Amino acid sequence: MSNNLLSSINSPTDLRQLDVHQLPQLAQELRDFIIDVVSVKEGHLGASLGVVELTIALHYVFNTPKDCLIWDVGHQAYGHKIVTGRRDIFHTNRQLHGISGFPKRSESEYDAFGVGHSSTSISAALGMAIAANLKGETERQHIAVIGDASIASGMAFEGLNHAGVTDANLLVILNDNAIGIDPSVGALKNYLTAVKEGKNPRQNNMIKSLNFDYSGPIDGHDIQAVIQELERLKKVKGPKFLHIITTKGKGLQQAEENQVQYHAPGKFDANTGNIIPKSDENLAPKYQDVFGETILDLAQKNDNIIGITPAMPTGSSLKLMMDAFPKRAFDVGIAEQHAVTLAAGMATQGMVVFCNIYSTFLQRAYDQVIHDVALQNLPVIFCLDRAGLVGEDGATHHGVFDLAYLRCIPNLIVYSPRNETDLQNILYSAQLGLDHPIAIRYPRGRGQNSRWKSPYQKIAIGKGQCIQEGTQFAVLSNGTIGNNVTQALENLNLPNGIAHFDFPFVKPLDETLLHTIFSKFETVITIEDGVVSGGFGSAILEFAAANNYPSKIQILGVPDEFIEQGTILELQQFCKIDVSSLQSFFQELLNN
Amino acid sequence: MSNNLLSSINSPTDLRQLDVHQLPQLAQELRDFIIDVVSVKEGHLGASLGVVELTIALHYVFNTPKDCLIWDVGHQAYGHKIVTGRRDIFHTNRQLHGISGFPKRSESEYDAFGVGHSSTSISAALGMAIAANLKGETERQHIAVIGDASIASGMAFEGLNHAGVTDANLLVILNDNAIGIDPSVGALKNYLTAVKEGKNPRQNNMIKSLNFDYSGPIDGHDIQAVIQELERLKKVKGPKFLHIITTKGKGLQQAEENQVQYHAPGKFDANTGNIIPKSDENLAPKYQDVFGETILDLAQKNDNIIGITPAMPTGSSLKLMMDAFPKRAFDVGIAEQHAVTLAAGMATQGMVVFCNIYSTFLQRAYDQVIHDVALQNLPVIFCLDRAGLVGEDGATHHGVFDLAYLRCIPNLIVYSPRNETDLQNILYSAQLGLDHPIAIRYPRGRGQNSRWKSPYQKIAIGKGQCIQEGTQFAVLSNGTIGNNVTQALENLNLPNGIAHFDFPFVKPLDETLLHTIFSKFETVITIEDGVVSGGFGSAILEFAAANNYPSKIQILGVPDEFIEQGTILELQQFCKIDVSSLQSFFQELLNN
Repeated sequence: MSNNLLSSINSPTDLRQLDVHQLPQLAQELRDFIIDVVSVKEGHLGASLGVVELTIALHYVFNTPKDCLIWDVGHQAYGHKIVTGRRDIFHTNRQLHGISGFPKRSESEYDAFGVGHSSTSISAALGMAIAANLKGETERQHIAVIGDASIASGMAFEGLNHAGVTDANLLVILNDNAIGIDPSVGALKNYLTAVKEGKNPRQNNMIKSLNFDYSGPIDGHDIQAVIQELERLKKVKGPKFLHIITTKGKGLQQAEENQVQYHAPGKFDANTGNIIPKSDENLAPKYQDVFGETILDLAQKNDNIIGITPAMPTGSSLKLMMDAFPKRAFDVGIAEQHAVTLAAGMATQGMVVFCNIYSTFLQRAYDQVIHDVALQNLPVIFCLDRAGLVGEDGATHHGVFDLAYLRCIPNLIVYSPRNETDLQNILYSAQLGLDHPIAIRYPRGRGQNSRWKSPYQKIAIGKGQCIQEGTQFAVLSNGTIGNNVTQALENLNLPNGIAHFDFPFVKPLDETLLHTIFSKFETVITIEDGVVSGGFGSAILEFAAANNYPSKIQILGVPDEFIEQGTILELQQFCKIDVSSLQSFFQELLNN
Repeated sequence: MSNNLLSSINSPTDLRQLDVHQLPQLAQELRDFIIDVVSVKEGHLGASLGVVELTIALHYVFNTPKDCLIWDVGHQAYGHKIVTGRRDIFHTNRQLHGISGFPKRSESEYDAFGVGHSSTSISAALGMAIAANLKGETERQHIAVIGDASIASGMAFEGLNHAGVTDANLLVILNDNAIGIDPSVGALKNYLTAVKEGKNPRQNNMIKSLNFDYSGPIDGHDIQAVIQELERLKKVKGPKFLHIITTKGKGLQQAEENQVQYHAPGKFDANTGNIIPKSDENLAPKYQDVFGETILDLAQKNDNIIGITPAMPTGSSLKLMMDAFPKRAFDVGIAEQHAVTLAAGMATQGMVVFCNIYSTFLQRAYDQVIHDVALQNLPVIFCLDRAGLVGEDGATHHGVFDLAYLRCIPNLIVYSPRNETDLQNILYSAQLGLDHPIAIRYPRGRGQNSRWKSPYQKIAIGKGQCIQEGTQFAVLSNGTIGNNVTQALENLNLPNGIAHFDFPFVKPLDETLLHTIFSKFETVITIEDGVVSGGFGSAILEFAAANNYPSKIQILGVPDEFIEQGTILELQQFCKIDVSSLQSFFQELLNN
């Protein structure tokens, strides 16, 4: 099919020149364009397919960018990017130096607010709307498009609760497709489903109780109907709420039928929709599956084990346990704060609680980790998936702050496994019973060992180990980045030149081993897959200072800036912690 | 009035021996006891007076501690403490080595969950309830008592949303008194008020929409009515919600009439209720008032200034601006997450936003600081009141983690004024326009200078200064704790012995000044009113390591453990950062 219309849309101004009857064709072209590019370049598919009509309708009706449009999370904003001047660079989506996979203020004036984490859109749009009122720009509109999974997060409720007592020109559009990345959960979801099914009369409306002008639900794929309603709402002052029903993956049969898989399907055939299988038979497992398979196995043996995930059953692989033990494994929705304190409550009753949260999202529950878990010294087991550099998701999603923000919390054990077997064994060890809470951080993607399963071994808390003896200087690594060190040292092939120590525990540190190291080496290098400000290297500095060791210490890791998207290798290269950079660094150090 | 009944209540078991008709008398005695002790020993008054009947009814009806009772926040739990075995030590409330001002698991088996920060009770109680079901203890009850201000926080909504789809034996009691510390705000509050006034028929109920068994509203001071309803609810399985109406400060006329002032009134006359005035005419101002008066003054001159507080208008003194500029200063309720992202949204529109959040509560919005503000480099001005050791509120409220958890965030400026005038001037400087967001942290309580107001001076970002020259070693201090250093050095009276430098900026560091210092001194001492793991001293270590300075560095600050309650002086003594400890430390260093 030709892109007759889409090829002429270089901005929403062009879009607004079209006759309304041309818009369904544009929608078809936009949908095809997204499918064509994402099938080859990969990325998030289903969410953007679901809002093609809404995207066109919003830019058609509203005066963007003067009217501010915020896409919650932003997975669904590909169409928005394409019609706002980024059609011809859309193929660089999520690539190094390409466009971001999420709306981003520095990328376009049409991206009113940078997003990535969920449930921020109402607060941000309300802030803009209040500012507009104060500046006398009372005609401006501010639109937050938020999904039914995201609106159930506490932050969204806080925004609604405030907006309802203002006269701000805020339009909240609930894009209700009953799914986030995984199917939506919770009482609000059930309520919304009942509303859709006509079981709740309109006048009995939670949203109206919060003082919003509620309308809907309407069919979000009926572009004329959406436009008509948006035109009406544009004239209504104050906080407004439009409930639209869409289908995630709309227009690609497989994506509609397998919504979880087609959230981000990888490469697929644009014509048939079939996913192109990866030849991963002999690949090492994903770390998430090491977690998922291990907790399933442990849960079969230990009745007290509970699993919790805030809306990531598939991504965390907790789904394995949820399927086997539905009463002991919980998807609580996008509710990291609740997830952590729920875990704390369970732990008071002697349950062994694994709370699996992506590193970047644990930032949402920082206070709960401190106040509800660590302060009470409850032995909750936090499993932080996607720790370190995560690659194509970019700046909003890197899990690089965790070592720094967790290390300062008293009572908390902080552990990074170096490989799959270590991860398996720390999960085993943690459920045997710890005196403290523990955070276990592991990376996105695959490990290195397809035969990782082995008889469980108990890991001693706070112990490091020597991986390679050496005399010239010592390299101390934390977690899987240590494998880069191992590879670099192998490549250098300097027998007994450089010593390498694995320090999986950032807290408590293995002080015995550190005394040995600092007594022997004049130069100590630390390396971590996290920010250098306040992280693992900083902990080593503190130890050395407290013990008056004069050794020179150099800290390698993620520099003090936000790291954009790219492959993990590209980003490691940027941070100079890839194998090749380390090799050069070590060589230079030896030469001096 | 005699304590005939109360004096015999050593546990809830004793309470349950009483005839129900004796309970009003017990309520009167309990109320009098609270008033008698708090009038002399100080503490939180109004909240506990408001739930005297509820407290008695809960322990009368339920089988505590087997049934788990959680008081949200915990300000209202004095009566609970008194009837659960702590009557005779209640006079040690909030004192060093005394009982905590909040429920605390290590203090009593009746304190099912430690609290302090708001809105955790539903999640914690749900966790306990799910655990009970899994253990087959299906008769156990789990009760969360939460105020109308706290239930409007997002975390509480997350808990309700999950609880509504479980079969957990959870009873949420909404203690609706229309006030937190300050009057409640928001659309939910308006909705609840309408319910109370009979304007919303029961069947139109938000809580029912979340699948709770809703009952109420009932009069929370009618002890027979409350008992009757609790007895009924005890037999209902699954999630239940009871809405009760109480009056904060009930039983003390002044406390009922001046609810904000009598939240924590200080010393007062137990008979008349009159607050005993402090002779503070000549005292230095509270830091919060330096903030409040300065932002008011600046807002009069700069129309773009906006102020935001999450539920602390009085405590932050933003109320001064709210009264003068009600359209530009916002109390958004207990909604730290929303507050931060609202500020970010406003900042995108060129507003100059002061977002005032207690240091300990900014932990609730950590992700929003990173993801919505710093990543987008929006120049939001965070004012972190109650930073450092806060004294009697204890472990849940110390603002000691902020330097560590903020320092690792790219783009963010982190500043601690050394005195009132510095605070005034950084507020002035920040609103002139910064290239980055800034966090300004200042302590609870009073400064040292009653004549702090002076013509505004612009503070140079990232600059430190020498306060006292010296030759032996250098002391680098951050913030107001530097005044302890000054006093210690004055007491030691060693001309030119010890150099003292003020480093108000933990980020960016004054590297020029640091090069000067490290070139000159073999020993450098850092001191901060925050945790030593990852904080200011750690930043200095990183600088020295990165620049190969061999100087010995010693870090003074808050050790890696949770610090309990006490006066600020007592807690500084514990951390060895009070004047006297510093003096000894410096003397010893000179002697060696």
